[in-house]
Parts: sequence; structure tokens; C-alpha cells
Amino acid sequence: MERARAARPRLREDRVTLAHGAGGKATRTLVEAVFREAFGNPLLDRLDDSAVFPVDGAAGPALAFTTDASVVSPLFFPGGDIGDLAVNGTVNDLAVAGATPLHLSAAFILEEGFPVADLRRITASMRRAAGEAGVGIVAGDTKVVERGKADGCYITTSGVGVVESAPSGEVLPGDSVLVTGPIGEHGVTVMLARGDLGIEAGVASDTAPLNGLIADLRAACPGAVRRMRDATRGGVATVLNELAVDAGVAVALDEDAVPVGPAVRGACELLGLDPLYVACEGRAVIVVSGEAEAAALAALRAHPLGAGAAVIGRVEEEPPGLVLLKTSFGGTRVVDVLVGDPLPRIC
Amino acid sequence: MERARAARPRLREDRVTLAHGAGGKATRTLVEAVFREAFGNPLLDRLDDSAVFPVDGAAGPALAFTTDASVVSPLFFPGGDIGDLAVNGTVNDLAVAGATPLHLSAAFILEEGFPVADLRRITASMRRAAGEAGVGIVAGDTKVVERGKADGCYITTSGVGVVESAPSGEVLPGDSVLVTGPIGEHGVTVMLARGDLGIEAGVASDTAPLNGLIADLRAACPGAVRRMRDATRGGVATVLNELAVDAGVAVALDEDAVPVGPAVRGACELLGLDPLYVACEGRAVIVVSGEAEAAALAALRAHPLGAGAAVIGRVEEEPPGLVLLKTSFGGTRVVDVLVGDPLPRIC
Repeated sequence: MERARAARPRLREDRVTLAHGAGGKATRTLVEAVFREAFGNPLLDRLDDSAVFPVDGAAGPALAFTTDASVVSPLFFPGGDIGDLAVNGTVNDLAVAGATPLHLSAAFILEEGFPVADLRRITASMRRAAGEAGVGIVAGDTKVVERGKADGCYITTSGVGVVESAPSGEVLPGDSVLVTGPIGEHGVTVMLARGDLGIEAGVASDTAPLNGLIADLRAACPGAVRRMRDATRGGVATVLNELAVDAGVAVALDEDAVPVGPAVRGACELLGLDPLYVACEGRAVIVVSGEAEAAALAALRAHPLGAGAAVIGRVEEEPPGLVLLKTSFGGTRVVDVLVGDPLPRIC
Repeated sequence: MERARAARPRLREDRVTLAHGAGGKATRTLVEAVFREAFGNPLLDRLDDSAVFPVDGAAGPALAFTTDASVVSPLFFPGGDIGDLAVNGTVNDLAVAGATPLHLSAAFILEEGFPVADLRRITASMRRAAGEAGVGIVAGDTKVVERGKADGCYITTSGVGVVESAPSGEVLPGDSVLVTGPIGEHGVTVMLARGDLGIEAGVASDTAPLNGLIADLRAACPGAVRRMRDATRGGVATVLNELAVDAGVAVALDEDAVPVGPAVRGACELLGLDPLYVACEGRAVIVVSGEAEAAALAALRAHPLGAGAAVIGRVEEEPPGLVLLKTSFGGTRVVDVLVGDPLPRIC
């Protein structure tokens, strides 16, 4: 924490740019320089996906609490829509905190003229996603803004969950880094769904609720889970960079071990994107103790949402704060944090 | 509940209109026909300001959970801005559920090009408001959309609180209806701040956190509080109509007893508005047992935010579901629910 404070970055821009919303370096700077500067408190300072706090003194259960604004464009895409994306995003933020999601809220900002049929389609999708995750949508709000003051529909979901078994948080050399399935499918799908590129890749979003998968993992290797994050904006690379800096360790990735489907690989090559930076909405990056690697991998693969899980790397001591990739060609390169915004409004 | 289900209204419009966001009849129809239809569950079905549920079995404390999207225009107005409005709105939703607000989250949707200085001003205002209410902002999210896809800044706040002493919920003939201060100041302020009307009224928003005031009230007349609502969109008239329908009682208001400041009265006369329908953001409508009326009024008036509190009416048996106003001229008229949207984007 002291280290993080000392390194608090300065915001150079006078105006908000799309990169400030991309989940990478600019987002981190905005959060540190504006939001943490204003709101700073021990819970927020952790900058985790969820805030975790007791509700009834030390004896009671700890609660996890999280929020996500969803502004994905287009609203409907292969494999999902803004509705299930919003629900799954919040469910997953709770799940990676080791919490069982309890209840969600949903606040809608609608543009005047938005088709009611689309709203019904979105809410039906939210209901299905919530049902799959075993949560209810128990509170809501709806605002309408004039034509041209929104883009159809924005949804902010928040969620509370009961922490069953929080990841230990400490990350040690020798720990294993896993991903729960092929990466980049959501980001590539949304980008292609915009239609500007004229590419058909037959790929669908990976949007899914991970709470069941993670509960199975926790049961299979109790006490061995160090950290979990869902790899949304900024992708696996951004999650691992934050982890490396935060824990003061290195992460050594093996390029050949990172699961990337052929359609995502092809689309990324055409578009000059690195799949490591492309958002997933149903994949988590999980660090477990080295000894628990096999048990963790087996538990993940035994679940339908973890069938493509893989060990993608290992935690090392040096150089602290860096993510290194051993490439297919035998070289090694630094995987830096995302700069700029190759894919705006991906979630 | 059976009655409410039977009466579930049908949505006739194919497209969302500004009235659907105004908090009146159209909003209620949209909520019933789309959101409750899709998400329906016992917690949401109550359609209260907060959902209330246990977190640790029946023995543990009950938690209140609520969400608000803030799209007020302009972002800054006399007496406040979108930041403290968002924080106070969520704090007040928890407070009227009888909860002590614990933690808030804040999700920002920013338009590309939004001045960072404005964002700093808003977050500073949120910090002050959160400090006043004794809560922290512990989780957040930030998204950025392209120019022309938002209107500067939208904020969705959610909050959790521990229910200390929930209102009893039952409303009986003979109960007293109080309001915690002069009504309509927020709505009139925001409308005049838009500047289209060329009216200067010297009025400021009433935005304020009501948790302290309500805690004092609870302490002064334990067990006597029947219902509380903050009178936001749709104003006091809408809150009382929902209460009358929901509880199957009549509410008899005394026009001369309703506190309306001279600036609000003057502006409403000029604009053809009824102050009973104009939004407040720091006023609650409170129903207490008739015997507790004097103690409740004294407790409210003893607090700086309740100095202008007043008894405005009484609960009666007949005609159920209606709000009746005894006018200054000695007549009686029905105060119906808000139809249309006289004041879009007031919060």
C-alpha cells in the first residue's frame, strides 16, 4: 500500500478520453488520480473487483460488494447482449472475491425512443443470466434521457455476496497461473459485431457466470487459491500486470500454453491485436500454490465453463512487477500494461 | 400483493419516452410491465426504495440494498451537483428503509471530452456528501463513451446498509402524515438552472442526507413509524399516491399545512406547476401513528434538516387508494399520480 501510494500517477489530460475507459494504464491513472484521490479509504484502496467488509462485527460473515457500468456497443452480439453481460460481470466480480453472489441491483439509463421490444429482450436475458447464477435482481432504477444523450441503453449492475472463502491474497514464487478457458472471445466478437470490418469469424462471446466454476475450484483445493480476477477490459495481460506490481513478483507466461481459439487467433492477426489484451467476460485468471496446480486444473476442467482451462505460467521472484512471455520462437518479451484503447466500449 | 398483481398495467408504447423516466404513472407502468415482469421476485415486488434481506440466516442483521442512476441536467446547480445528489439519493433510500447506511459504490459513465476539472469537482462533492452521511465509497467503475453518446457524466450509486429499525409498514386510519421540510426546492432549482426560462428565484436544491434526521426520529418515537419515503421524482403527491394504493387507505392532505417556500411557490405559479409534484432530494414523507405525531414532529424540528417539518395530513379509511387535498379555499380535490414529465432529468 505504501508503495502504491508513493507511485500514485499524475493525470496529464484536461479532458476524458476513450482510453480512460479501456481498463489499461489510462484507466488506472484516472482511478488513482481522481477517484482514489477523492474517495480514498482502505476498502477502495485495495482496488479489487469487490470491496469486502464485515456486516455484523468480526463474528458475522464478510460481505462482498461491487458495481459495473455496462456500455457495450452493439447491445446485441453473438453469444449474448448487454443484459447477460451486465449480470455476469457483477456475478464474476463477486465470485473472484470468493463470495457466493446473493442479490443484484440494476439501474437503466435509456435513450428516448429506445424500442421497448429491445428492452424486453435485454431484461429477459438478464433474468436468464441471474437464474443461471442463482441470484435475484432485487432493486432497480430507470432514467430516461433525451435523444442523442445516450446510445440506446446503459445498465449499471451492483451486487452483494457472502464471502465463503476469500483467496489468501499472498502470491509466492512457485505459484501456478491458470486461465479458465480460451481467451479473447468476447472482445473479438463485439468488435466483429460492429460490422465495420467486414470480417465473419464464427466466434461468440464467452460471457458466463463463473460462481459455480469457482465454487468447485475452492472445494477441490481449499486454502490453495491465492488470487482470482476475471479478465475483462485489458484482458489477461492487464490482470497479470496489476497482480505482478501489486504482489511485487514476476509472472512468467508460456505463449504456447495460453489457450486461444483459431477464430480469435485469426481475427487478432488480421487486426494487429494481441489476444492477451482482448477482453473476456467468462474467463478468470487464477493463481494457486504450485502443489495445488494439478487438483485446480482438474477441478476447472471438470466444469463445463472450465473445459478449456490451462496452466499458462508461473510466479517467479525476479524481476518484480513484470510479466514476461516466453514466445513460441524461444524468445522472451515483456508483456506491458495496455496503453490506449484498441477496442472501446467492449463491456 | 395479489391485488397489485391483478392490476399489473400494460405498456402501450413501442418506444421509451421521457415520461417513462419521470417517476410517475408511466414509470410505474414500465417497471411493472417490463422490469417486474422479467425479474419478479418477492424482494423486488415490494417496489420499495431498498430491498431488505437477511445475510446470515434469521439470526443475523437484515441488510438494505438500493441503487440510483443520476442523470441530472445541468450537472451543477445552486445547492449541489450530480455528485452529492447521487450520494444523498442512495443514502436516503437506505435511511427511509430504517437502515444505517454502511457503504456505497459509484459507477461513472463519462462522455469523451468531459473536463477532468468537472470530474474532480463532482468527486470532491461526493466525498463531502459521503462524509456527512458517515459512509465510504468503497467500489467503483468507470466507462467512457464517444462524444455525443452521453451528456457529460452519468453516475449510478448503489448502497448497502444495516437495518436498525424498519418502519412497521402497516398504515392505519388515524395515522399522521408528515413532511420533513419545505417541498419542491430541488426540482425548481434544477429547472431554473437550465436557464431557458430566464427566471431568477434565489432558490437552492434541498439535496441532503437524511440518515441522521431519521435516526433521531426513530429514537424519539420507537415503534411508531409506519412508512417513510423520500419524495424525489414525482414529488410528495406521487409518494402519497403509491402509499394510498399500496396500503388501501385514503390520505387527506391540508393544503395550508404543506410547507412551500415563497420562491418555489412563485416559480411554480409562473410555470403552471403544482409543488406537490416537484422533486425534493432532501425531504422525506413520514407516516407515524397519530399518538406519536407530536413527538415525531418535535424530533424532526430539533434537527437542522427537519427545521421546517410539518404535519400535512392524515390517513383515513375512505376512499381507499386516493389522495385528497383540502384546498385553501375550502374545497377538496383529488391529487392524482403524475402523468407525463413536466421536469425531465431532475435527478
